[in-house]
Amino acid sequence: MSSAASATKRYLIASVPKGEPSADTFKLEDTNLPAEVPEGQVRVRAVYVSVDPYLRGLIGRIGAGKPIVSGQVAEVVASKAAEYKQGDKVFFYGQWATEQIVDPKSADAKLKKIDPSLPPSAYLGVAGMPGATAYFGLHEVAQFKKGDIVLVSGAAGAVGSLVGQLAKRGGAKLVVGTAGGPEKCKRLVEHFGFDAAIDYKKFDTEEKVTEELKRLSPDGFDVYFDNTGGHVTDALLNVVRKFARLAICGSISVYNKDPREVKVPSPYPKVIYSSTTIRGFLVFDYAAKWDEFEKNVHPLVRDGKLKFDETVVEGFDKIPEAFAGLFHGKNTGKMVVKVA
Amino acid sequence: MSSAASATKRYLIASVPKGEPSADTFKLEDTNLPAEVPEGQVRVRAVYVSVDPYLRGLIGRIGAGKPIVSGQVAEVVASKAAEYKQGDKVFFYGQWATEQIVDPKSADAKLKKIDPSLPPSAYLGVAGMPGATAYFGLHEVAQFKKGDIVLVSGAAGAVGSLVGQLAKRGGAKLVVGTAGGPEKCKRLVEHFGFDAAIDYKKFDTEEKVTEELKRLSPDGFDVYFDNTGGHVTDALLNVVRKFARLAICGSISVYNKDPREVKVPSPYPKVIYSSTTIRGFLVFDYAAKWDEFEKNVHPLVRDGKLKFDETVVEGFDKIPEAFAGLFHGKNTGKMVVKVA
Repeated sequence: MSSAASATKRYLIASVPKGEPSADTFKLEDTNLPAEVPEGQVRVRAVYVSVDPYLRGLIGRIGAGKPIVSGQVAEVVASKAAEYKQGDKVFFYGQWATEQIVDPKSADAKLKKIDPSLPPSAYLGVAGMPGATAYFGLHEVAQFKKGDIVLVSGAAGAVGSLVGQLAKRGGAKLVVGTAGGPEKCKRLVEHFGFDAAIDYKKFDTEEKVTEELKRLSPDGFDVYFDNTGGHVTDALLNVVRKFARLAICGSISVYNKDPREVKVPSPYPKVIYSSTTIRGFLVFDYAAKWDEFEKNVHPLVRDGKLKFDETVVEGFDKIPEAFAGLFHGKNTGKMVVKVA
Repeated sequence: MSSAASATKRYLIASVPKGEPSADTFKLEDTNLPAEVPEGQVRVRAVYVSVDPYLRGLIGRIGAGKPIVSGQVAEVVASKAAEYKQGDKVFFYGQWATEQIVDPKSADAKLKKIDPSLPPSAYLGVAGMPGATAYFGLHEVAQFKKGDIVLVSGAAGAVGSLVGQLAKRGGAKLVVGTAGGPEKCKRLVEHFGFDAAIDYKKFDTEEKVTEELKRLSPDGFDVYFDNTGGHVTDALLNVVRKFARLAICGSISVYNKDPREVKVPSPYPKVIYSSTTIRGFLVFDYAAKWDEFEKNVHPLVRDGKLKFDETVVEGFDKIPEAFAGLFHGKNTGKMVVKVA
């Protein structure tokens, strides 16, 4: 087949950045894929590649000289696996490569065909890992229940915007989101249906956010879904209600800093008097329950009942730039790169 | 009765201290109890008064000019309540007073007769609130299970020494305690049966404790029962295993500091990657399950299967000094004041 002979390339980690990722963090490499697909495997061509904040930590754990891996939607161009045929659209975790060989049996790749009734790129957002992160984080980690007063940080992002909508659908008494800048804040309320939004760039200290949270909910907050860390998290701990539950999902505010340098006001005395639970999680902690997520959330996506934003950057050569842009709020909602 | 006519006195909060409590924190006041006990109530004479670290926070919440309240064991000297008679030994939460009137129906006082087969002062320690704190904190809050690797801070204290013993009895793989000074550390291992002890005064930085924890358990820790906060807690967060559970019971290291001044290394990125749960609690969160605690722990106390230390200070006039001494490690195990 012609595709098997075409020139292919991929990104390697060039160096692990000390601070923010930059153009020098990755380098392109020509790849030589075998002319014949190995028995039981498939060859795929990337269509959409996901860039996500959590990859910042992954870079350090993978290390320089190796390929970075993220979620992507691809098309099967050649198959030696019975369950897949040329033209199938698939989701998997793989290298940032124009084409690659994938083993359907790999637990890391998690290759699967996607539901053609959903938009393909949704598998990188609302219908995929960010969606599952919102769903399990809210329901399993934060133990959300009807009537809760909820705060979501990073609420304009792929995960946060879903958390707010799921909480509203689930009967939250009040859902407040934080985001950077008046446009994102307006979008939270007018588009995603949050009850209120706080611009963390305007309310730029723990004290200011604390006062605003008290104004919005004098009774305090039951649930906090944290995508950012930073002064929003510090402020929330001043207004936790008895038995509050905090789902710690991300810390984008500190991903580019040396963790030993990041000091925060001690949460410990505060969590004692309020009997608060702070629980960190990774979405794959709930891998065994993925079917439950798809069963509950995919129909809402199909029927247009969950809104989601996508920022689509075009071009394989733009992946590093798109990734770096995450740390400057260049995205509204899920950031994906359209390759093909 | 002669006792009804005797001079009685009590302590009031003289001023809320900024830092450590001192001789000036409390002042004595003469009290005039009614000659006749009101209908349905009892008059009691203090026998043992409990002083506890948590009272440091309570002082601020009660405020100057009012009486401080803690657990105590007393003897009924006059009764107008059918269920109590003169000479009964009781436990209740009440003022630091030589004698006082108590309403058996008060939800705050929690008056009850004590089991005569247990030592009376044990109701202020292993058989009472500190015992329940250890029991519920380990089992309910930290979700302890057989095979767990456990760290206890403040392990020579009334709560910590019980946590270690309960964890060992429950099949912990390893139980490590922290305490101040070589004598307390020796006692942890030789008397209370901890597997190892760390002197936090010798290992006086986060880095030193982290290295020692790694040496003692290269696999990390599943459960942490925290009575102190401070650099031990910061270090533990460097060695948490996947799905670790931290029960935050006390923060004696910061009780005398302005909470806004206390900065700690951010725990948030660490709890994400380890899916760690940090849960604060107050023992009264589990008030509805108190019977379970008594049923499981009181027989162990009666049969001498749980060891507990008591530091008994004699004299009603020594209560403030005994309380202040808690913040200088003057106690080994439970600190109580014997009044009568």
